[in-house]
Amino acid sequence: MKIISCPLELKEYLKGENNSTSFQGNRTIGFVPTMGALHQGHISLIKKAKEQNELVVVSIFLNPTQFLKGEDLDKYPKRDEADKQICKLSGVDILFFPHVADMYTNDEVTLCAPKVRGYVLEGNSRPSHFNGVLTVVMKLLNIVTPTRAYFGKKDAQQLNLISLMVKQLFMSTQIIPVDTVRESDGLALSSRNAYLSPNDREEALKISSSLRQASAMVVKNILDSKEIIKEMRNTLGDLEVFYVEVLNRDFEQLSHVEIGNTIILVEVRVGTTRLLDNIWL
Amino acid sequence: MKIISCPLELKEYLKGENNSTSFQGNRTIGFVPTMGALHQGHISLIKKAKEQNELVVVSIFLNPTQFLKGEDLDKYPKRDEADKQICKLSGVDILFFPHVADMYTNDEVTLCAPKVRGYVLEGNSRPSHFNGVLTVVMKLLNIVTPTRAYFGKKDAQQLNLISLMVKQLFMSTQIIPVDTVRESDGLALSSRNAYLSPNDREEALKISSSLRQASAMVVKNILDSKEIIKEMRNTLGDLEVFYVEVLNRDFEQLSHVEIGNTIILVEVRVGTTRLLDNIWL
Repeated sequence: MKIISCPLELKEYLKGENNSTSFQGNRTIGFVPTMGALHQGHISLIKKAKEQNELVVVSIFLNPTQFLKGEDLDKYPKRDEADKQICKLSGVDILFFPHVADMYTNDEVTLCAPKVRGYVLEGNSRPSHFNGVLTVVMKLLNIVTPTRAYFGKKDAQQLNLISLMVKQLFMSTQIIPVDTVRESDGLALSSRNAYLSPNDREEALKISSSLRQASAMVVKNILDSKEIIKEMRNTLGDLEVFYVEVLNRDFEQLSHVEIGNTIILVEVRVGTTRLLDNIWL
Repeated sequence: MKIISCPLELKEYLKGENNSTSFQGNRTIGFVPTMGALHQGHISLIKKAKEQNELVVVSIFLNPTQFLKGEDLDKYPKRDEADKQICKLSGVDILFFPHVADMYTNDEVTLCAPKVRGYVLEGNSRPSHFNGVLTVVMKLLNIVTPTRAYFGKKDAQQLNLISLMVKQLFMSTQIIPVDTVRESDGLALSSRNAYLSPNDREEALKISSSLRQASAMVVKNILDSKEIIKEMRNTLGDLEVFYVEVLNRDFEQLSHVEIGNTIILVEVRVGTTRLLDNIWL
């Protein structure tokens, strides 16, 4: 596994790789952008990238611009050496490990999230968060020029906005959504689970419970969003709920679940930790 | 000359063209984005693109998002048939002629100009102008994937911000600045010159006069910015002056002209028309 920290060195190195129509057999590139603290969720993204591409690039970059003031940038888990080992063992070809100063200068051109879809749900409680996400993803995609880039469905709004960016700005990469990986008891994997106390960990199970409940209601043909949300909020109990929403795949509110075109999303605070989860129905 | 209006059709058509390192001889692409109403300034961009590339693409797109409310979007000169002829006669290979609805949808991800450099000079009097410019240029560059894109030095701040965008977001296109083309009496060519009455046309000569004067002062080793600006404002007389500035190539103010690293910029209103011009020293 090659480790590169300089963006322009990586860009030069990969130049000409991604041209899958070429007779030379230039290779398809699969790309998995991460903020480190890798877990099975990331490994499933890497696995998918390996299945679908000839060359796999993973980036580890704790992107400061997507954290608001007072958020957990400073305490975000950092496990650089373990992350490198995981990448190596997962068969990653190139690990991109840039420094902040390689990625940002002063007074920059930035990406701005859509005025509506960028400021609902997580974007409502974290107003400039998605501007930071879109800016760093744009930079990373332009450096790596991947054929395909892999994002988890757990961060559904992020996935939606990145897909919009690629489509609206006519970018060349295909965005591949990958299913959420869960602990055996249902908790969605997240680097932020490391913040949870044993008691928080127990409380956090209410999130996946509420989603399983929604799913069970839909199976019983209870499709009314209000009913579903009410039951879910009951299950979430006294957790601080940022939102429970029933949306279509374009992130518009649905009065009734439409099978094959629905995402039900939850964000709550458990202890001091924000956790989000969702199911796609 | 091929004329294409669908962005994705053009993107597909050009796919694999721009890979100059390939043994197959994939062609280099030179790109000249325009808003139509083509004049000798545009033709000089096309000429340069033809010299340096194997395939030349010109776009004609009157981009609504770079006009503020109340500006001249509706009366901007439109000469579609003449423009097509000019492109054909200039040896353009592909003319990209999209409709607004092909380029924009609702609730979009946009580019935002840098907080400092995007809001001085023209950005000061036209606050969201450069967001619109950067967004459309990003779209166009992603559709055409040119090896090189050509922009006139006359719109110096636009050129500066586009170059910053390409560098900061790690885009692959090389931005090529091209010298301003002038009428024999000195007036810089601009599609907006069409708005000038005969009297305005006469008054507008003060702009290039003031720049020639600045240049003459520098030749005489008068390098103090304040002195130069004062003389220039005298020459501009009673024209409404938006700014006269002595900047370095990074668009930072200079107290003294630095030969090889200076741009002197003027923007004025002549009649109802905003005109800008500059010299690079």
